[in-house]
Amino acid sequence: MSEPQKTTDGQHSTKGAYVTGGEFSRDTNYIEDRVVADVEAVRAAATEESSTIGDPRAEGLTEDAEAWPVEPGRYRLVAARACPWAHRSIIIRRLLGLEDVISLATPGPVHDVRSWTFDLSAGGRDPVLGTERLQENYFARFPDYPRGITVPALVDVPSAAVVTNNYPQLTFDFSTQWLAHHRDGAPNLIPDEQVEEMLPVIKRIFTEVNNGVYRAGFAGSQQAYEEAYHRLFDAMDWLEERLGHQRYLMGQRITEADVRLFTTLVRFDAVYHGHFKCNRQKLSEFPHLWNYARDLFQTPGFGDTVDFDQIKAHYYVVHEDVNPTQIVPVGPELDSWLGEHGREKLGGSPFGAATAPGPVAEEEKPPGANPLYRR
Amino acid sequence: MSEPQKTTDGQHSTKGAYVTGGEFSRDTNYIEDRVVADVEAVRAAATEESSTIGDPRAEGLTEDAEAWPVEPGRYRLVAARACPWAHRSIIIRRLLGLEDVISLATPGPVHDVRSWTFDLSAGGRDPVLGTERLQENYFARFPDYPRGITVPALVDVPSAAVVTNNYPQLTFDFSTQWLAHHRDGAPNLIPDEQVEEMLPVIKRIFTEVNNGVYRAGFAGSQQAYEEAYHRLFDAMDWLEERLGHQRYLMGQRITEADVRLFTTLVRFDAVYHGHFKCNRQKLSEFPHLWNYARDLFQTPGFGDTVDFDQIKAHYYVVHEDVNPTQIVPVGPELDSWLGEHGREKLGGSPFGAATAPGPVAEEEKPPGANPLYRR
Repeated sequence: MSEPQKTTDGQHSTKGAYVTGGEFSRDTNYIEDRVVADVEAVRAAATEESSTIGDPRAEGLTEDAEAWPVEPGRYRLVAARACPWAHRSIIIRRLLGLEDVISLATPGPVHDVRSWTFDLSAGGRDPVLGTERLQENYFARFPDYPRGITVPALVDVPSAAVVTNNYPQLTFDFSTQWLAHHRDGAPNLIPDEQVEEMLPVIKRIFTEVNNGVYRAGFAGSQQAYEEAYHRLFDAMDWLEERLGHQRYLMGQRITEADVRLFTTLVRFDAVYHGHFKCNRQKLSEFPHLWNYARDLFQTPGFGDTVDFDQIKAHYYVVHEDVNPTQIVPVGPELDSWLGEHGREKLGGSPFGAATAPGPVAEEEKPPGANPLYRR
Repeated sequence: MSEPQKTTDGQHSTKGAYVTGGEFSRDTNYIEDRVVADVEAVRAAATEESSTIGDPRAEGLTEDAEAWPVEPGRYRLVAARACPWAHRSIIIRRLLGLEDVISLATPGPVHDVRSWTFDLSAGGRDPVLGTERLQENYFARFPDYPRGITVPALVDVPSAAVVTNNYPQLTFDFSTQWLAHHRDGAPNLIPDEQVEEMLPVIKRIFTEVNNGVYRAGFAGSQQAYEEAYHRLFDAMDWLEERLGHQRYLMGQRITEADVRLFTTLVRFDAVYHGHFKCNRQKLSEFPHLWNYARDLFQTPGFGDTVDFDQIKAHYYVVHEDVNPTQIVPVGPELDSWLGEHGREKLGGSPFGAATAPGPVAEEEKPPGANPLYRR
């Protein structure tokens, strides 16, 4: 695939993005290694096609990829709180109770031209990996790594080398490969009987919503923007309708699909509405979607991972081509995230027979604005 | 006063604006001539202090200013539909029924570095003045005119020279000096018994709201922006409270103060919320202010003068320093401007014993988006 070019996502893309003919495209080349429960079985399985969205049923590896063993304490998840793709992995790690077996490093929101950096850590170095820049961890794996330095990245602590940054597969593998290490009462976020129905939903959410907001915000022409805008809001209308008669995306309880939608919704009014010109209406002006988003926000594992300050700082400071003043908006007000959502009337319960995760560990609480943490 | 410097309001300011120490300031130097009913009396009156907001009781002239006679057909109002300061004069001309005595020229929304231009007129020239650029009409008056080329400008048709661009006084003079030419049933927008109370309201609206959104959007630093943001929303809260128990700003019927507030409110969600980062909430999220704005929008003379396309094009295309892509947002949706506002329950009526203006003449209908005109 083509080398990512200079774009407005970062100075150079740290997401591996490029613009072609006015339309924003996302580079979907990743380090596709996997951390798996049975290394030999996965190595023996047939090579499968590379897949943008990942597949929880994947049994093998893509070409040139490696299998690494599940091993408590061996891996560190590097996930900036600002980034929606990384945020997904923070939420799922927490829902499944993997905090004690996979540690968390959180780079600051404002990466520079080269890399996400550990600027929020004491001394500007990650205390476990010892690196200042995530780029060092990519170079420890591939000294001439040519693509964007992206989060989330799962890093092998002994070698300080990136194992994978393949986020579409990463969270599925948290569910399926780390099963022996899930907390008691962890939910099954990928129920077997729903996979067939869930994967197309996840795919549509990825192409139309998760990535749809970027397509609007990074459009290189008025026409490309307008097409992206209508495509995004068509998908929002589909979701609004779907969530008008069921509590969660797949029905009565939370699945991986809800996590993947939530990370975009929680950024919608704070960033995408204004910064990316996704302004037909605010999320808060979709009755069902807004209540759905608030229901999730108020569910342990979701809202308690959100840092609105880091989210806003990231987009408004990094995207100088979109916001040359780098001034970060004060709004929107956030207290309404705690308002009554009334979704209980649709039945269901977030965790079904499973249980909610406990409170966030003190050292992992997001330091910035969040109405759940009154400071 | 200081020469306006390069700013983000236009390439060079066409509003005569400059930035000092991070805070946006508006150049309040204008051509302060007046068109008056009794030229001799006004010339004889004592010179008064220059006033930013104007005063409907003004009897004389500021230093170096001239008095011109009221004369039907002699003057042409040059007022871009995009510009809130010009929009004010379009509304008041219409409420008072001055269309047949003061003609209207509407420059396009996207002025260039030098001037507003008559690019919407056939052949790119104003059909009455014969000029391509409003700058020519300023130069016809002062060949070395040094300040911003601003709208509204009242132009003397015989000489094609600008008479005044002093918008704070212009609309007051429409009310007080052109009285003999008002339509039958025209409202008194400046009732004598309310002037004392109204002028401070108008001043606060000017400094905190009309200009407050610019102070936020053109802030040169995070600190200046945040101060501007809080100052603006403090004023919005004051208005929300005031309009919670009375239908219009001054009570039971429409006055000049309502016109001056309306021109900012109608641009709030379309432009200021996103482009100027005035995003604590949308106008549509202030219950009273939103219903008040919709009440006015649906009142003849207000909404029927609005061109949302020109409004959005102006800000998003001209302010390259704020929006370098010059992409114009598709949203927000506009139909909600026609929704029920329920303000009748507060009593009052827009025109009291006066009457509403008739429909907009076909040739003066705004050509762009407006939910009142289904096309």
